[in-house]
Amino acid sequence: MNKEQFLIDKYFSQLSLNKESMNLKNDAAQVDFGKKKIVISTDMMIENIHFFKNDSPEILARKLIRINISDLAAMGAKPYGYTLNLAIPRKNASQWIAKFSSGLKTEQKNYGIKLFGGDLSKSEKIFMSITIFGEVSKGIHLMNSAKKRSDIYVSGNIGDSVFGYLCENDKKYSFIKKKISVSSLKKIKQKYFLPDPKLKLSQSLIGYADSCTDISDGLISDLTKILNFSNLGADIYLSEIPISKTLQSIYNLFFDKKKFWELVLNWGEDYELIFSMSSQKKKQFDKKKSNYKIFKVGNIRNDRQLNIYQKDLTKIKLNFTGFSHF
Amino acid sequence: MNKEQFLIDKYFSQLSLNKESMNLKNDAAQVDFGKKKIVISTDMMIENIHFFKNDSPEILARKLIRINISDLAAMGAKPYGYTLNLAIPRKNASQWIAKFSSGLKTEQKNYGIKLFGGDLSKSEKIFMSITIFGEVSKGIHLMNSAKKRSDIYVSGNIGDSVFGYLCENDKKYSFIKKKISVSSLKKIKQKYFLPDPKLKLSQSLIGYADSCTDISDGLISDLTKILNFSNLGADIYLSEIPISKTLQSIYNLFFDKKKFWELVLNWGEDYELIFSMSSQKKKQFDKKKSNYKIFKVGNIRNDRQLNIYQKDLTKIKLNFTGFSHF
Repeated sequence: MNKEQFLIDKYFSQLSLNKESMNLKNDAAQVDFGKKKIVISTDMMIENIHFFKNDSPEILARKLIRINISDLAAMGAKPYGYTLNLAIPRKNASQWIAKFSSGLKTEQKNYGIKLFGGDLSKSEKIFMSITIFGEVSKGIHLMNSAKKRSDIYVSGNIGDSVFGYLCENDKKYSFIKKKISVSSLKKIKQKYFLPDPKLKLSQSLIGYADSCTDISDGLISDLTKILNFSNLGADIYLSEIPISKTLQSIYNLFFDKKKFWELVLNWGEDYELIFSMSSQKKKQFDKKKSNYKIFKVGNIRNDRQLNIYQKDLTKIKLNFTGFSHF
Repeated sequence: MNKEQFLIDKYFSQLSLNKESMNLKNDAAQVDFGKKKIVISTDMMIENIHFFKNDSPEILARKLIRINISDLAAMGAKPYGYTLNLAIPRKNASQWIAKFSSGLKTEQKNYGIKLFGGDLSKSEKIFMSITIFGEVSKGIHLMNSAKKRSDIYVSGNIGDSVFGYLCENDKKYSFIKKKISVSSLKKIKQKYFLPDPKLKLSQSLIGYADSCTDISDGLISDLTKILNFSNLGADIYLSEIPISKTLQSIYNLFFDKKKFWELVLNWGEDYELIFSMSSQKKKQFDKKKSNYKIFKVGNIRNDRQLNIYQKDLTKIKLNFTGFSHF
């Protein structure tokens, strides 16, 4: 047996103890989705773009699954299974894969998903991607169906992730590390490395929200997609955007508040939901599903304007590039 | 609109004019497979491992689709659709993607497949992967079900691909270029860059072959998988392995015939089928599907031996590592 097959048998077979994968002993998996509609999404993570060589393989595996799960959350689908692509350098491959596969195992349990199959290769830089499958039960969320009179909500704190990253990787912002507590630093780094996609909230919003997506490219960038696809505009109120206590203290450190908000609203990797819902649907939602916390941050506009308001209700012009690889 | 979105709209939307992709305007595709069982496979191609920076983006796209299609051929499934991951350097991204997407378009037409969605990123090295979906109609081929008395067949010429690669990329073998005609060189390079997966033959073998896979890692390596999974052995006859006229003349150039066969049987990337079938099933197959050419190269053995025989029927011991990334 060659080493590639050995690594697959040793580390990935145990993750694929499902009939669909046929124990990874064929050229493909065979899946019977029954009559269910299936949501399919794919996301990759690349060395030096999304992470660094020395990041923990276990954490990378967990983040990889979670960012893919977040696409299912965006749609309101229920996680089912996934295929994996992994390319890593030859050196220490075995130890690296041992840790990586243990991270996969943790998240397979967390989300009740199965590994159907994959492809393993050597490479100079680490590359990983997942294609994930979700089941549709009652319906899915779309981005082109926001309604004129709806309000705009997010599912949780925005901006922790960007500072979790910048503290460690951008000299301009490393001063923050000295100004916040160790536990605060740990929390925002946790938000960067282990996002918590709002799967259950999203499923419970089916039939209530009229549009929804996850914040992966930045609150404004992802909201803009909804607005463009729905041919509408929005008013957003900075004072209503939920931020953590840690972020509040980071905000206080910033002389240039405009810069602070540009980072928070442009960065992405929050993996919270942003969605629109009418006040009527909100009332119904509160009655039936009152255990979910959601935060109103603004409202849809009839026209195509996007206005950002400061605390004093004056408009502020932020520089919104949104995240783009090119 | 940022450039990433611009590139997706300009080059990939036209490839996704299907209801499942929802025009790439959501976080995932929604697919209704009806009651059909689905075969899922995924394969990647990485710069400096599977190809080089200056290879034609159009050809790379076409090869990427074809090697994924070959996994469906291995199983006897019918191509349906795919998702794409693509990561490329920023420099000249637009021109590169224009050519790449045109290659995808060509093969989408060839194989009648749809693009459901994907992920686009910048990167230092080029990385690409596809997850492909195939429909199962009558059944699928497996690798663990070879039968004791069956013969072993391949679907076409073996070994062109390895020399198509080595001629250009290995100094030890560049002498071959001077010894064969321009058109011969073109043919073997074509086999390397544009393999022709035997989809229809594979589908027609359902119910006749008792095991089947595609030769991606080398004839012996892929046959060995069948033998290991089926707990059987095989006799293989070198004189029966079909090779092209070009390969015959390359064979004549080799002083070390053993080395020639090691390259031909170890290399992979032939993307022909290797399968086992009883003589009785072969007769039935010939009657019903006589228009397919297949080549008997040996037979399954009861025990776990793998014997390779030369023309004079003496055994030869070849060095079989098979292709392994690690």
